[in-house]
Amino acid sequence: MALKDVVSGVRNEEGISTVLGILKQRYGERFQTGQAFREQHSHTTSYLPSQLPDGVVFVESSGDVQDVVKLCAAHHVPIIPFGTGSSLEGHVNAPSGGISVDFTRMNRILAVNAEDLDCTVEPGVTREDLNTYLRDTGLFFPIDPGANASIGGMTATRASGTNAVRYGTMKDNVLSLTVVTADGEEIRTAQRARKSSAGYDLTRLFVGSEGTLGLITSITLRLQGIPEKISGGVCAFPTLKDACDAVIMTIQMGVPVARIELLDERQIRACNAYSKLSYPERPTLFVEFHGTEETVSLQARQFADIAAEFGGDSFVHTTNPEERAQLWKARHNAYWASRALAPELGALSTDVCVPISRLAECVAATQDDIREHGFLAPIVGHAGDGNFHVLLLFNDKVPAELEKAEAFISRLNQRALAMDGTCTGEHGIGQGKIGYLEQELGSALPAMRAIKKGLDPDNILNPGKVFRF
Amino acid sequence: MALKDVVSGVRNEEGISTVLGILKQRYGERFQTGQAFREQHSHTTSYLPSQLPDGVVFVESSGDVQDVVKLCAAHHVPIIPFGTGSSLEGHVNAPSGGISVDFTRMNRILAVNAEDLDCTVEPGVTREDLNTYLRDTGLFFPIDPGANASIGGMTATRASGTNAVRYGTMKDNVLSLTVVTADGEEIRTAQRARKSSAGYDLTRLFVGSEGTLGLITSITLRLQGIPEKISGGVCAFPTLKDACDAVIMTIQMGVPVARIELLDERQIRACNAYSKLSYPERPTLFVEFHGTEETVSLQARQFADIAAEFGGDSFVHTTNPEERAQLWKARHNAYWASRALAPELGALSTDVCVPISRLAECVAATQDDIREHGFLAPIVGHAGDGNFHVLLLFNDKVPAELEKAEAFISRLNQRALAMDGTCTGEHGIGQGKIGYLEQELGSALPAMRAIKKGLDPDNILNPGKVFRF
Repeated sequence: MALKDVVSGVRNEEGISTVLGILKQRYGERFQTGQAFREQHSHTTSYLPSQLPDGVVFVESSGDVQDVVKLCAAHHVPIIPFGTGSSLEGHVNAPSGGISVDFTRMNRILAVNAEDLDCTVEPGVTREDLNTYLRDTGLFFPIDPGANASIGGMTATRASGTNAVRYGTMKDNVLSLTVVTADGEEIRTAQRARKSSAGYDLTRLFVGSEGTLGLITSITLRLQGIPEKISGGVCAFPTLKDACDAVIMTIQMGVPVARIELLDERQIRACNAYSKLSYPERPTLFVEFHGTEETVSLQARQFADIAAEFGGDSFVHTTNPEERAQLWKARHNAYWASRALAPELGALSTDVCVPISRLAECVAATQDDIREHGFLAPIVGHAGDGNFHVLLLFNDKVPAELEKAEAFISRLNQRALAMDGTCTGEHGIGQGKIGYLEQELGSALPAMRAIKKGLDPDNILNPGKVFRF
Repeated sequence: MALKDVVSGVRNEEGISTVLGILKQRYGERFQTGQAFREQHSHTTSYLPSQLPDGVVFVESSGDVQDVVKLCAAHHVPIIPFGTGSSLEGHVNAPSGGISVDFTRMNRILAVNAEDLDCTVEPGVTREDLNTYLRDTGLFFPIDPGANASIGGMTATRASGTNAVRYGTMKDNVLSLTVVTADGEEIRTAQRARKSSAGYDLTRLFVGSEGTLGLITSITLRLQGIPEKISGGVCAFPTLKDACDAVIMTIQMGVPVARIELLDERQIRACNAYSKLSYPERPTLFVEFHGTEETVSLQARQFADIAAEFGGDSFVHTTNPEERAQLWKARHNAYWASRALAPELGALSTDVCVPISRLAECVAATQDDIREHGFLAPIVGHAGDGNFHVLLLFNDKVPAELEKAEAFISRLNQRALAMDGTCTGEHGIGQGKIGYLEQELGSALPAMRAIKKGLDPDNILNPGKVFRF
């Protein structure tokens, strides 16, 4: 969080006005300039102030995208791609105005190749829609950020979620993309083969480029077989360090956990209060295994042994779907349970990720900081990846409170950087973390800028995001 | 294979001569211009003609690399990074002359973080050296191309090998890099955290960039725990299609095979003759499982059931290391067994990779082509990835034979491209596949060129590779 990084760019009034006129004529009701549409397409899910686009175009095909990009390029007007607007760092704000390209109507599933465990979708398909569609094929797409985000947005921000420890992040699950570049041409980054060493890895370059290098028009994704059995369980530990040590050992021993989530004692207390549960109010791991009857029970036994070694309670787990949902209830409701602690306050989610050996140390130091400064701030972590979120609850209407929150986030990010970690495991840079990216990868910024300049010399693609350009 | 793509660039005689003089003075015995050194550092492992660098500098530190790059940049002299010279597509040739930067002496293991399952090495460390070093830690690095390649070279070419079906390729196993860019600055592409969405994925951009965007000076790698148990086995099938169908089913059912290699009947015959073995002379899968006693035996049972379903012989497997080596002998000796079929002929390895559902069809059509044109050409495939190599044996001294081989490779690559496959699963583009990359990803080449131009505007980094620039 760094409000100083949210700059307002220079507006090209003449170009914008020309483009608005042409889009209105060309797209009719598919182009909207009303205040409500513009507000809805600026940043609404974060602490960052909204910066409205001048209009919103609802594209329905690659051809539309090419058309809009060519028009905006000709008149040097910014283009801001929009999926569901669930990103957290101001990614869809329009600091220099321009056109929001809404992908909601590009929501077709173009192909499912069940034998190859892959599919190709348009960017507006949401992860939940995709999984509903796939259910009958016996396949699923495992990446699960908190929101029901669009696949296009998840690709653009290199999203992940609770399953990443087993299935990786978007970078590991995108096989190929089609992308409309700043010149309005559509390119394909790779064939559908599982493996390739054919030229530069443009697929991975566009994954996580946050709309600043091109507009994604289709995504070919790896899929996974729906596990025959899923086993879920819960285990409380005496201390945070014990819980983290159990995670490290689980990963080191190669136990293929599908999920291993850490909730700190404050988060557990919040969940107990919110959902009338009675978990022991200690640091707790929520664990899930995917496999066959045999393999999940084997994994559960392996994990139980590890947990016991670090003083964990006896590991309660089940393959019964209802019981599993009950066991995992605290994890699923964590966000709302935290918000309920103080419904009148705003909430802000941090996103550091550190090498797993430093996780306990980083979380503990962060808890100390929270206590010392009197924050209300539960912690939920994707512990297997070393990634954790502090949900900072504070009155974001009071400048002094906001400043205090900014200082806390700065300390947290510095702490993670000092441990060879990152300021963002899965949320991306957007506007809010531009300053932290400079601190984290300053030496690499000239190379990032050179790439941006090579691919978008006029800086029309989502300007004002990722870095100062 | 496309000799027409091996062009000789324009030589900057004045710059080269200046740089030679300065390097001689600065590096003494660490700079060599003798014919033998220069020949050894041009391309010796492929059918492509050698194009010698003007001198070879043996760098010992990042500082040396920066120094050499700054010097060459100032005088517009090409720089060709050199690991072990085991690449296959002319990657280390010097079509415009210039300086070969030999990384052999940058072979330190800089850090092993056992708790985090990662390590950081200099580029000259070979994969075998790394694994020897790691043995006592209980960890290993799984990527295993045929040669004992350097980690730097493997990173630069996005290498893989037999373990990729389980552990991925270099793109999945590099966490972070330091790289000296064309301006002589050293950059770091990522922190050591397992997961990040901090800015453009430069790590993945440099992986597979074949020395054309920067010189890699250190690599942080993911490591794996050495499996408690390894089980290896062999199974012959009535037809190639049956063998491939068994592979598809194995992958689809999520059986976590560590290796699943296909040898066609001709390759098996060659192995039987070479090593005095008596495998049934039919398409055969060599399979390996990594895990605990319990999980490998479970996996072996799952695979045996699948194999039986597709008419496979009864699946013979063992966890005894000596017996396992004996069972897998044919696979390990495949290359030399093939060469022994006609020791007087040259050999050339192709590298297509297709979506796994098309593997049987692609291999079968390729076998038909081999038969029809009377080639001696056994096939070995990393079947789980859809990647296979035809070892084409022919008299490369006879122009008509070379032409016939080129035509065969062209048909093979077209066949793979038509199936949404790639002309190179793991060998890279180098010089030999420049024309095929144009066919495969033509729409993306302007973007690749824009990136190259952004990062190396004077084209001094390994010029004449990957694409025409």
